[in-house]
Amino acid sequence: MSAVQTGAGESRRRVLRGAVAGSLGVAGLGAASGHPAAAADRRAPGGDGEGKLSVAVLLYDGFTALDAVGPYEVLCRVPGVRVTMVAREAGPVRTDTGELTLMAERAMSEVERADVLLVPGGGNRGTVAMMEDAGVHRWIRRIHRRSTWTTSVCTGSLILGAAGLLRGLPATTYWASRPYLKEVGAVYTPGRFVETGKIVTAAGVSAGIDMGLHLASRLSDEKVAQAMQLAVEYDPDPPYDTGSPEKADAETEALALKLLADSAR
Amino acid sequence: MSAVQTGAGESRRRVLRGAVAGSLGVAGLGAASGHPAAAADRRAPGGDGEGKLSVAVLLYDGFTALDAVGPYEVLCRVPGVRVTMVAREAGPVRTDTGELTLMAERAMSEVERADVLLVPGGGNRGTVAMMEDAGVHRWIRRIHRRSTWTTSVCTGSLILGAAGLLRGLPATTYWASRPYLKEVGAVYTPGRFVETGKIVTAAGVSAGIDMGLHLASRLSDEKVAQAMQLAVEYDPDPPYDTGSPEKADAETEALALKLLADSAR
Repeated sequence: MSAVQTGAGESRRRVLRGAVAGSLGVAGLGAASGHPAAAADRRAPGGDGEGKLSVAVLLYDGFTALDAVGPYEVLCRVPGVRVTMVAREAGPVRTDTGELTLMAERAMSEVERADVLLVPGGGNRGTVAMMEDAGVHRWIRRIHRRSTWTTSVCTGSLILGAAGLLRGLPATTYWASRPYLKEVGAVYTPGRFVETGKIVTAAGVSAGIDMGLHLASRLSDEKVAQAMQLAVEYDPDPPYDTGSPEKADAETEALALKLLADSAR
Repeated sequence: MSAVQTGAGESRRRVLRGAVAGSLGVAGLGAASGHPAAAADRRAPGGDGEGKLSVAVLLYDGFTALDAVGPYEVLCRVPGVRVTMVAREAGPVRTDTGELTLMAERAMSEVERADVLLVPGGGNRGTVAMMEDAGVHRWIRRIHRRSTWTTSVCTGSLILGAAGLLRGLPATTYWASRPYLKEVGAVYTPGRFVETGKIVTAAGVSAGIDMGLHLASRLSDEKVAQAMQLAVEYDPDPPYDTGSPEKADAETEALALKLLADSAR
C-alpha cells in the first residue's frame, strides 16, 4: 500500500516530505508526469529542448537573493516547469550584501528563448548597472518577444523598464523605488503584483512569493498553485505590521533605508 | 542635504534602494555602525574574528533553498550580523530539486563557533542523509554548546533532533513531517516557530522568514526587526488560504505531497 493511496492522514504519519517518490515509482518531473495536459498547452513557444516550460531567472552582480529564490521555490515543483538561473556568464553570482553566492547555470548567450523571464531586483549598485547595460536590454527584449510571461520582482521592474518594456504600462516595484518607475515610462500602480498583458511586476523582495504562486496558477492551474502554497507552508504570520510604507511609521522607514544602505556591497 | 535628513517622504522621491549609502558616508556594516550597543552585548561568545555576530547556515546536498534564503535575507542586514553559508566542504551545494546551487563559503571544519546556528530543511533524501550523519551531529553539538541561538527551518528540526538536541523539548517542523519529531524525542508543538530556551524551530520553508524576523529582534531590537520587515516588503498577501494542512483540503494535501515527490532529486 503506497503512502498516497492511504489518504492524507495516513500520509502524514507515514512519509517524510518527498518520501512518496519511491512508493509511486515516479521517474521525475517532466512532460510525462504531473499535469501533462496543462503543461502541453503552454509548452510550444519556448521549450528548452526537454519538453518543459522554461523559466529563466536573470542573476546579476548585486541582485537580492530572496527576489530570485522566492519565485523559484514556488515554481520549481509545478509539473512540466524547469527553472534555470541565467547570467552574463555561467558560474557564481554575488548578491547585494556580498554574503551569499548563487550559481548561474547558463550564460545569457546560451538562452535564446524562455517561456517565462523573471528579473529579480537588487541593491542600488546592481540595479543601476543593469539599467545601463544595453547588452542586457537586448537580451531581455529578445526573450520577451516570444515569452509567455515576462516578470520582475522589486527593482527588477526598473530593469524591464530601462529595456523599454513598460512604456505607458501599469507596474509596481520596491516601495522605496516607486518614483523611478516614471523615469522608465511606467505608471506606478499599487499591488502586491501588477499584471498587464503578459507582463507581471511584483513589489519588493518577499512579494515574489505571492507573484510566484500566481504564475504557478497561470502555468498550470489553481489546484497546483494551492498545493504549492501548502508545499512551501506559506501561511505567513509576520511578527509586526510594518511590511509596507503605508503601515510603517517614518522612523521605521528611515531605519530600513539606513540598514539597506549600510549592508550594500 | 542627505536623503535621510530630508525625512521619509523626500527619501522615497530621492533614493533608489540603498542609494543613501553615499550620502551618509557609511563605510559598511559592522560593529562600528548600526546599533553597536545591541551587537556588543551579544558578540563575545561566538564572534567570527571580525567583531560581528556570526550566523552559520548549514547547507547540504538536497537542502531547500528558501529555508536558508528566507532567514538569510532578514538577518543579513541586522547591524553587526554576518551570515555565512557552511557545508561539509566550501563550494557549490545543490538544492532538493537539483535546479539551483548555492555556494558554501566555509567548510564545517573551519567553523568552530557561531552565535547563531541555522539548519534548513530539505527533501527526503537530504534530510535523511543528515539525520544519519554522525560527523554532522558532532559539529552541530559543538556549535550548539556555545551558541546564543540554535535554530532550524522545516525538516531541519529533525536534523537537530537526530543530533540529540531536542529530547523532551517542544518543537515544530514541516507539516508533513510532524510525526517524525517524536522519533527524535521532541514534542510537536503548533506554531509558525517554537522557542524553547535557546532553541528555535520553525515550521516549513517560508516559516523561516517569520522566524528570521523574530531572531532579528532577539539579536538586535524590535525597531530593527520592524525595519527589516519593511526592508523585505514583507506584507504577505497569499493568493489562497491553503498554506497549512489545517486550512487545505485532503486533495490539496495529496497533490502537494505528489509535487514534492515528483520534483525530488
